Amino acid sequence: MVLDKINQPNDIKKLEPEEVIQLSDEIREFLIDKLSKTGGHIASNLGVVELTIALHLICDLPKDKIIWDVGHQSYTHKILTGRKDGFDNLRQFGGMSGFPKRAESDCDVFDTGHSTTSISAGLGMVWAREMRGEDYKVISVIGDGSMTGGMSFEALNNASELKKNFVIVLNDNEMSISKNVGGVSEHLSKMRTSDNYMGLKEDVMHSLEKIPVYGDKIITQIQKTKSGIKSLVIPGMMYEEMGIMYIGPIDGHDINAMVKVFQEASRYQGPVIVHVRTKKGKGFVPAERHPSRFHGAGPFDVEKGLPLKSGKASYTNIFSTVMRKMGDRDRDIVAITAAMSDGVGLKRFSNMFPDRFFDVGIAEQHAVTFAAGLATQGFKPIFAVYSSFLQRAYDQIMHDVCMQNLHVVFAIDRAGLVGADGMTHHGAFDISYLSQMPNMVVMAPKNKWELSDMVKFAFNYDGPIAIRYPRGEAFSKYKEFRAPIELGKSEEIFEGDDVLLYALGSMYKNAIEVAKLMRKDGKQPTVCNARFAKPLDEEYIVNASKKHKCIVTLEDNVYTGGIGERINNILYRHGYEGEIINISLPDEFVEHGSVEKLQESLGMDPKSIYDKIKKSIGA
Amino acid sequence: MVLDKINQPNDIKKLEPEEVIQLSDEIREFLIDKLSKTGGHIASNLGVVELTIALHLICDLPKDKIIWDVGHQSYTHKILTGRKDGFDNLRQFGGMSGFPKRAESDCDVFDTGHSTTSISAGLGMVWAREMRGEDYKVISVIGDGSMTGGMSFEALNNASELKKNFVIVLNDNEMSISKNVGGVSEHLSKMRTSDNYMGLKEDVMHSLEKIPVYGDKIITQIQKTKSGIKSLVIPGMMYEEMGIMYIGPIDGHDINAMVKVFQEASRYQGPVIVHVRTKKGKGFVPAERHPSRFHGAGPFDVEKGLPLKSGKASYTNIFSTVMRKMGDRDRDIVAITAAMSDGVGLKRFSNMFPDRFFDVGIAEQHAVTFAAGLATQGFKPIFAVYSSFLQRAYDQIMHDVCMQNLHVVFAIDRAGLVGADGMTHHGAFDISYLSQMPNMVVMAPKNKWELSDMVKFAFNYDGPIAIRYPRGEAFSKYKEFRAPIELGKSEEIFEGDDVLLYALGSMYKNAIEVAKLMRKDGKQPTVCNARFAKPLDEEYIVNASKKHKCIVTLEDNVYTGGIGERINNILYRHGYEGEIINISLPDEFVEHGSVEKLQESLGMDPKSIYDKIKKSIGA
Repeated sequence: MVLDKINQPNDIKKLEPEEVIQLSDEIREFLIDKLSKTGGHIASNLGVVELTIALHLICDLPKDKIIWDVGHQSYTHKILTGRKDGFDNLRQFGGMSGFPKRAESDCDVFDTGHSTTSISAGLGMVWAREMRGEDYKVISVIGDGSMTGGMSFEALNNASELKKNFVIVLNDNEMSISKNVGGVSEHLSKMRTSDNYMGLKEDVMHSLEKIPVYGDKIITQIQKTKSGIKSLVIPGMMYEEMGIMYIGPIDGHDINAMVKVFQEASRYQGPVIVHVRTKKGKGFVPAERHPSRFHGAGPFDVEKGLPLKSGKASYTNIFSTVMRKMGDRDRDIVAITAAMSDGVGLKRFSNMFPDRFFDVGIAEQHAVTFAAGLATQGFKPIFAVYSSFLQRAYDQIMHDVCMQNLHVVFAIDRAGLVGADGMTHHGAFDISYLSQMPNMVVMAPKNKWELSDMVKFAFNYDGPIAIRYPRGEAFSKYKEFRAPIELGKSEEIFEGDDVLLYALGSMYKNAIEVAKLMRKDGKQPTVCNARFAKPLDEEYIVNASKKHKCIVTLEDNVYTGGIGERINNILYRHGYEGEIINISLPDEFVEHGSVEKLQESLGMDPKSIYDKIKKSIGA
Repeated sequence: MVLDKINQPNDIKKLEPEEVIQLSDEIREFLIDKLSKTGGHIASNLGVVELTIALHLICDLPKDKIIWDVGHQSYTHKILTGRKDGFDNLRQFGGMSGFPKRAESDCDVFDTGHSTTSISAGLGMVWAREMRGEDYKVISVIGDGSMTGGMSFEALNNASELKKNFVIVLNDNEMSISKNVGGVSEHLSKMRTSDNYMGLKEDVMHSLEKIPVYGDKIITQIQKTKSGIKSLVIPGMMYEEMGIMYIGPIDGHDINAMVKVFQEASRYQGPVIVHVRTKKGKGFVPAERHPSRFHGAGPFDVEKGLPLKSGKASYTNIFSTVMRKMGDRDRDIVAITAAMSDGVGLKRFSNMFPDRFFDVGIAEQHAVTFAAGLATQGFKPIFAVYSSFLQRAYDQIMHDVCMQNLHVVFAIDRAGLVGADGMTHHGAFDISYLSQMPNMVVMAPKNKWELSDMVKFAFNYDGPIAIRYPRGEAFSKYKEFRAPIELGKSEEIFEGDDVLLYALGSMYKNAIEVAKLMRKDGKQPTVCNARFAKPLDEEYIVNASKKHKCIVTLEDNVYTGGIGERINNILYRHGYEGEIINISLPDEFVEHGSVEKLQESLGMDPKSIYDKIKKSIGA
């Protein structure tokens, strides 16, 4: 096994050329084998095996800096930097992260998770290098999807002033940012990456002379126009127009070709985009055919190419169904996604109502203000988005939606703990940041029927309104409790004695489990489904405070800004003298691992909660 | 006076051509006269008089929708839509807003204030029009500076799919987005805006045939490349490459030329950028020469072209001075601004240390992650920014700075109430959203010396840290109280009897005034300067709770997520049974007006606060 020779950074450079090719095959087998057991981002990682190898061949790590945009494609990078043993516990509690982590290796130079940060971070490192007068490579690897994010445009616009080397590898694995334009492009691509071209770059006229047939005539025309020189024949002219040199496209599975181009690109005195075409899932047919099924997948059967467990209906599935119904019922409903129609459950809506569906690309800021624009004209836009990604649009929610009190619905998936994706993906802050926005309403359903009811409620409401629900299986019990939703009113499920479990959204399930444990001990707690994080049901809370000597708030949001903190204020203000227990996420960033393990480690599981109650009430 | 004939929307269309020209002169005189008394955004408004007139000549208001990006240039629009009387009380408490407000007129279709929202909002309205099968114009007017904001790129990228009319007027008043490329460009500009060209647009080859001399040959070349057709000769090729038709540049002070082009542009079936060149401050020489002095100016002397009052040192001035000193002392300090070097006080730093100064454009998201990249390499970046604009970078502060616990300093100017700019510009939320971020430290100085000390403290700290301070004159008393700053420790100024005034930042001044009023009544309150909004000085608060029967918290942030709410929790948790008074901004959007008037209306002025105390303690 060549892979056995790879135990620390730069080991790859000791290999013979034919061993390098073999290594790429072995890494593929390794990844398919390991990820079939642990799950992980199989398709994106299989796509960049050769790209990563090529980068490692031209880099000296950790001196050189490679920044992985989004970061879920960094597995080969982890293998090549001495972390292949980590794959047995990949993304598991206490195990290796599925994303780059500075704390994990000095070859990981920037923690990523959300998209489009890599060019900004890389540019910072480039300037740091120049100010210190040091000499190392800085290479940002970014997907074509991320290039639609406004932040990458801001960064490129800023980078264009740069007169020093900064390599941006555009990993184009699906979306066609620009078409291969045939012979001339290939010719130019070769020419532009040769030493000769590098020397000529400052004087573009000279390079044009080398274009056969029309070179001279074009130059004459160009001399009149002083513009557009390069773009005549180059696919990446949008970037060139911004002042960023563009090379490509090149084959992202041809290691030798990439090594040559990367080396040339590293010598250019300025920002340079190397456009590399890769195939998601490369080398594993099921993943090549169904890259989205193998995006962030669980364990799978290698032979059959299918997930090991099919899984029960998730909140996302429920949302998908209700949106189909609502779309049929109300022609004013329009749905918006930021490049996640599968992930957020809008695929069916998009098929049934293509004229009222908008995929705006990875562009959360635009998505929200676009929705605001639609709402001013009487439509009912819903933006379905993952909680941690909606953070990108904080100002747009505040300034463009809440300030004008517009009827925009936010369907916030992946709220609370998400599990294996960890720190960058937990939806831990949405209640806090949405609750501080004037006019905003925030709900969370206890089970799948309530999600459905809340979506309907949200469309009938008139103003900014959000529904947050977690990743994974939808809780499908307690169907019999389905009192009509009223603004700011919670739903009491069981009336009990002296302990109140006041639970929001997914923590309702835990409250029910706590109640079961308590009943075994002969206690009858009151269980209330909070429903609204904002406005809080102050009336219920105040009344309940008169009857209960212990009130437990349960939420899967950080404490600061969550419901617990605000409920405490209500209770204290009304002179409550009983015990208060606030169950929430801690005010810190939470690691990856299964939701169950994480809840245990954070004291949020039913047993831990009950232990706290016993301690508090002295039982 | 022609202006007398303008009393409601569309009145302008009844004027004779020569009257229209006269109207533009009269509007200029009107604006200079009125704004010299009230203050306002003189330079930007003088720049768009003709542009606005041209738009109103081709529009039918309120049916057609004009969205003003940023919105501070909407004065002529207000005059032309029946609001000229409002200029006597412009930006004053209870008076007309300086920005578009839907609540003010049905000709204002989208409330703006922050930059780069207009294309997103406009695109939403375009789709609303199409889905309803209606027929009206949608025109977004955006400045060249805003085009560097990532959100505008996201919106353009999304708009490129559009097959229906959407006019984006690029108001280019300073930055040269692309140079005028001479004869060919002018030729093309004319050709492209003719009816003939519109018909040909679908088949670009035909239009190329009309280019003299090289048309045929270029076509042959183009047929090989399938790319770059338009960009050969057109300055806006970056936009064209994105699929957005570009027309321009045209003279933004030539009403007839603009009317013709706007009419043509309105017939094009797709998104179209009309590049208009205007001159900031046009027609008022002092504003033409010093547009930034007349950006958001106070009252001024028309004859002398100078502000009526020179103003005392602001916190911005103090920050400017300390940054100059710190830059000299520590070569690792680098300063970043998002196109506001004057506004945030980094001009001197940029002159003295140009190699360690970065203006990244209107790009708050990039600015923060760029800073994070610099911090990973041991530099000490400081991002100086207005509070409400930093909202744009919520996710970057959280995900790229706090999650990696990087030493990035945030100098947050315009925190709290900003006065005349009003709702969109008040820095009312920063304590709330920063305090919920793990690892973040948040400070606010009581006076100018403390700002200086806090900047030094922030650079010596190691982690994410923010200093927030208000617009306007720096408080320059109590120099004698300058205890060294310690993390999370407040500073007791006066020890008193039974009332504690616990004041953060600019509210320290109000606390002092309250204390004076109380002393007149023979009471001796304790006054404490909070210094830290996070971490809170729990030890001091708990100790103080034992000595005081009334605790007053004072801050100029919304209540939710502010220090008051968290201090209440601390007090209650420790069994405090005295009175608590929380002075803060309300949980709603606050209007414009002088800070004094606003404080009075919100019960935050010294007298109102003392009244609350008296009521509370029964004195």
